Amino acid sequence: MPTVKLVDENTNNPRVRAVFDDIKATRKIERIPNIWRALAANPEHLELCWQQVKAIMKPGKLDLMTKEIIAAAVSISNGCDYCVNSHLAAAQKLGLDDEGMGEVLAVVGLYNQFNRLVWGLQIEPDVFPKVDSSEPRPK
Amino acid sequence: MPTVKLVDENTNNPRVRAVFDDIKATRKIERIPNIWRALAANPEHLELCWQQVKAIMKPGKLDLMTKEIIAAAVSISNGCDYCVNSHLAAAQKLGLDDEGMGEVLAVVGLYNQFNRLVWGLQIEPDVFPKVDSSEPRPK
Amino acid sequence: MPTVKLVDENTNNPRVRAVFDDIKATRKIERIPNIWRALAANPEHLELCWQQVKAIMKPGKLDLMTKEIIAAAVSISNGCDYCVNSHLAAAQKLGLDDEGMGEVLAVVGLYNQFNRLVWGLQIEPDVFPKVDSSEPRPK
Amino acid sequence: MPTVKLVDENTNNPRVRAVFDDIKATRKIERIPNIWRALAANPEHLELCWQQVKAIMKPGKLDLMTKEIIAAAVSISNGCDYCVNSHLAAAQKLGLDDEGMGEVLAVVGLYNQFNRLVWGLQIEPDVFPKVDSSEPRPK
Amino acid sequence: MPTVKLVDENTNNPRVRAVFDDIKATRKIERIPNIWRALAANPEHLELCWQQVKAIMKPGKLDLMTKEIIAAAVSISNGCDYCVNSHLAAAQKLGLDDEGMGEVLAVVGLYNQFNRLVWGLQIEPDVFPKVDSSEPRPK
Amino acid sequence: MPTVKLVDENTNNPRVRAVFDDIKATRKIERIPNIWRALAANPEHLELCWQQVKAIMKPGKLDLMTKEIIAAAVSISNGCDYCVNSHLAAAQKLGLDDEGMGEVLAVVGLYNQFNRLVWGLQIEPDVFPKVDSSEPRPK
Repeated sequence: MPTVKLVDENTNNPRVRAVFDDIKATRKIERIPNIWRALAANPEHLELCWQQVKAIMKPGKLDLMTKEIIAAAVSISNGCDYCVNSHLAAAQKLGLDDEGMGEVLAVVGLYNQFNRLVWGLQIEPDVFPKVDSSEPRPK
Repeated sequence: MPTVKLVDENTNNPRVRAVFDDIKATRKIERIPNIWRALAANPEHLELCWQQVKAIMKPGKLDLMTKEIIAAAVSISNGCDYCVNSHLAAAQKLGLDDEGMGEVLAVVGLYNQFNRLVWGLQIEPDVFPKVDSSEPRPK
Repeated sequence: MPTVKLVDENTNNPRVRAVFDDIKATRKIERIPNIWRALAANPEHLELCWQQVKAIMKPGKLDLMTKEIIAAAVSISNGCDYCVNSHLAAAQKLGLDDEGMGEVLAVVGLYNQFNRLVWGLQIEPDVFPKVDSSEPRPK
Repeated sequence: MPTVKLVDENTNNPRVRAVFDDIKATRKIERIPNIWRALAANPEHLELCWQQVKAIMKPGKLDLMTKEIIAAAVSISNGCDYCVNSHLAAAQKLGLDDEGMGEVLAVVGLYNQFNRLVWGLQIEPDVFPKVDSSEPRPK
Repeated sequence: MPTVKLVDENTNNPRVRAVFDDIKATRKIERIPNIWRALAANPEHLELCWQQVKAIMKPGKLDLMTKEIIAAAVSISNGCDYCVNSHLAAAQKLGLDDEGMGEVLAVVGLYNQFNRLVWGLQIEPDVFPKVDSSEPRPK
Repeated sequence: MPTVKLVDENTNNPRVRAVFDDIKATRKIERIPNIWRALAANPEHLELCWQQVKAIMKPGKLDLMTKEIIAAAVSISNGCDYCVNSHLAAAQKLGLDDEGMGEVLAVVGLYNQFNRLVWGLQIEPDVFPKVDSSEPRPK
């Protein structure tokens, strides 16, 4: 049972309505998922969250499928049922088939195990990414 | 400080040596990372772990880069320093550049936040992946 | 479905009854919440837990509202549905309104994100609290 | 060892410089903490993160001290050393004394314990916050 | 609602059937638990997982009861409802009574608390296990 | 670097000294581990924590070794370095050898993996412990 009232999709609140309309247009969906209707209980926070999702969940060096797979991997690690379902659904819509989902699951399981093996063995890092020495590029 | 003695790369133990040789050949590396030298304290567990990694961390429906990205995402979520470093290094070796790594980080951060927003709002799943009704294929 | 039998509020067990009566008096409630009825399956552990809650969840340098907010923040971070509901309810009863609850949620989400940004970036602490050099005061 | 190069405080990158200047002015500090210098490896993500922190970590229904206490509580629950230190330092600067910090710690410990007692006992929520039925206010 | 189709116990898939038969024989059970029917959506992963469980969950230096107690402790710490129930059931079947289960719960709660006290206090390890200096034995 | 001053073993504070003496006598140790010296910054919390450890970490239906193994399993799952070291050391002192420690690690790793497999598969509990219907016994 939600801890806030889910805001109606057709709310008259202009700030909320603007975000809802942008979500539908950006995601090409007809129905606002409950997470956004719940966040709408605080319009300023809704705007901040949607702006952040919109800025991060767009194709970049990583394509959208890879980003949804990361989102699913994080949600499976944490055990967030809502997010496991919605990100697996999103990855599937982008083309991930059953076998691909099985591989996501296998890798997530494997490294949740290895993280603990490392903690139990108390070993220190010995393989590092190379760190670029240049300044960030102006964009 | 490790809780077990790291086994020497040139150990005479034949079970351990066989795994170490296979790791070097499969991964095309010259040096055995400490995680494997620590797991080698229990040769049977070492074999089991390596067999599992070898079976899962090969290209399938997901390419190896995507699998290393998932491994990094899980390790960042859990805060395992050893694994964060080694999987970012592995993804980088496979071609992930600084901008790509920045995107992995941004998505992992974003959904660790959203998992908690969902838990605080206590909303129920409303978007689900489609579940295939066919039997698994014999392989 | 609970893994133990919830003990009846009107149990004849004197140790359990004494704790239940103290919970009702201290909290000014009519009904024993299920967590206490479940813990009562082990009367000694029930006593220990209640004594600990009673000692910690009283006004001190922090008022009770702040303590319930911390309890909610911890429970949202961990994803414990029972505790999210009961501590948000407690904070609300002490006067936290919807906007305040929205702020708790926003801060919890934000720093669950930042904890992972830090882990992915592998940065070392560089801002520390000042540590008082005096001995603890006798009380 | 950071996985990105920490950007110099006096960088010529204008986007990064603008954020660094705003951090110094807003927080009334002379030195940019490492988290921001590391995030600056990706200027767009730096801007997004700072904008979010600035929007959320301002006095509202909750004062800044309470928000820093929540940040510390989350970071202690997750075990993020960097964040534990920096948020305890921030709360201390706002006036939280040693006794207050001890109370934060005690409450965080207590409810990390209770979250697990609930999970082991598998009890369902029975105390809920009241959910307001009104539409969100335009602001 | 599962994210994969649960494979029928009487499936004609020979790889899956072989694992199901081995699970029934090894565990002396008549009915395949849902976790295995779900993993069977990917027969290769099913085989890998069952082989791993079979290799680890057998009496060794630790008896099976102790291993099931560890499995329950991990699952309670993580809040995995399915696993909390199934491992408490398994430990109970092996002879753990209500009082014993209460002790498992108390210890798990206690050290989830202490892990956070340590993180909040930021203390460094000062008591270490002795590390054996010998090579692993050939088996 | 600890966030509180570690209290000297030979402190003149009578409440702290009484706990320190009891820890040495109960545990048959000569030196107070840092966790207790840090908790001593708040004498009342120190007393509460020690009383709780003393009440729970005594032989009951589970022997002390099993309880230390649970403590280690919890600490490995959470990644608390201090606690991993101290509980593995305690179990070793009680007789757990290298092979036994390897088994603890293997089981902890395995079920951290399975917890995530369950979360990714979103299956509901189907095997439950039997719940005793009797009232708790007076003790």
